[in-house]
Amino acid sequence: MRLRKVKDVDDKIKEYDGLIIFEPEKQKGSWHKLFKNDNPIQMEIGMGKGKFIREMALRNPDINFVGCELSKSILYKACKKLTDIPNLLLINYDASKLEDVFSKGEIDKIYLNFSDPWPKSRHEKRRLTSDEFLKVYENILKDNSEIEFKTDNRGLFEYSVISLNKQGYDFLEISFDLHNSNKEDIVTTEYEDRFSNQGNVIYYIKVKVNK
Amino acid sequence: MRLRKVKDVDDKIKEYDGLIIFEPEKQKGSWHKLFKNDNPIQMEIGMGKGKFIREMALRNPDINFVGCELSKSILYKACKKLTDIPNLLLINYDASKLEDVFSKGEIDKIYLNFSDPWPKSRHEKRRLTSDEFLKVYENILKDNSEIEFKTDNRGLFEYSVISLNKQGYDFLEISFDLHNSNKEDIVTTEYEDRFSNQGNVIYYIKVKVNK
Repeated sequence: MRLRKVKDVDDKIKEYDGLIIFEPEKQKGSWHKLFKNDNPIQMEIGMGKGKFIREMALRNPDINFVGCELSKSILYKACKKLTDIPNLLLINYDASKLEDVFSKGEIDKIYLNFSDPWPKSRHEKRRLTSDEFLKVYENILKDNSEIEFKTDNRGLFEYSVISLNKQGYDFLEISFDLHNSNKEDIVTTEYEDRFSNQGNVIYYIKVKVNK
Repeated sequence: MRLRKVKDVDDKIKEYDGLIIFEPEKQKGSWHKLFKNDNPIQMEIGMGKGKFIREMALRNPDINFVGCELSKSILYKACKKLTDIPNLLLINYDASKLEDVFSKGEIDKIYLNFSDPWPKSRHEKRRLTSDEFLKVYENILKDNSEIEFKTDNRGLFEYSVISLNKQGYDFLEISFDLHNSNKEDIVTTEYEDRFSNQGNVIYYIKVKVNK
């Protein structure tokens, strides 16, 4: 997602201390304490404007959610609508380094929604479903937990299906047109609503990380 | 594919003896002898009107092709255009019993094009990408050989991708819109031409059967 950079974002973002966990490495292994319960912790990587994670957190009070966003400006813009949800915390972090923030097994499920497609081959490693990223996720996920992935980008989905298969993950569900499938109660992102309304298909896969 | 039944097809079809191998079980283990060479043998299961396998055989004189079709009437109709191609033989056979016709390793590659989707759950086992069929293919294919699968049916493709993943096969290529992909020199079926011209997407996957 592209967004104009927010001026003085480093200062402004501090007003959301508590919702945003600064220096999240210090919480490694202690996230359940931070949430003050033993409920499972699910994470959205690349949460953008936060519509998806907000709705997920409100619908599922017995699950904790962590929203991860690399862009400080995007995260700052999202915060306004995300305050006062006790089961939601945010981090401003590079997903390739999440092993520094979570212990193995600390995360129960990962959502990847409309990630940057990075269409050029030389940028393959930046795609959130590349081998490199999947290995990071494995090191923070519980055994046999799930990754859900949605995109409207055909090239990225083709790449991702091959990449997820290559890791040996079990494919649990797949749809090549999610919004015209039998799947009910789909929680959408802002981007997803816009693209789907324009008549584009949304691709979806849910896999089990069997390790 | 649906086609009106040909009257007296049992008699008529005999004129193609030599192109069609009757009682193919008798050739089990001897297909290379029948082709009079040691070239690899590839098979299309459900060859329909035969456009695909005809073109494949003509383009690849150093590969032998076997066309398999369950319907005698469809096979008979196809024969007219398939005579005098030395690297092509046909069989009228139920794909679930192909282990009676070929030894393990006798087939080098399998093509499944626009198979009947059998959309009802209770007919799942009839789909040519079901567990049951895939296990039959494994028993006639060489180790590490490929299956290529094409369809315009979204439900069948969703089912097939999950089924192929479940068997542990390696996904080599995938496309959710084959005719708008980078893939060149695509050999099409009659059905594929019609559906693609109507603006429908063609789904495609190539897997390696790693056993």
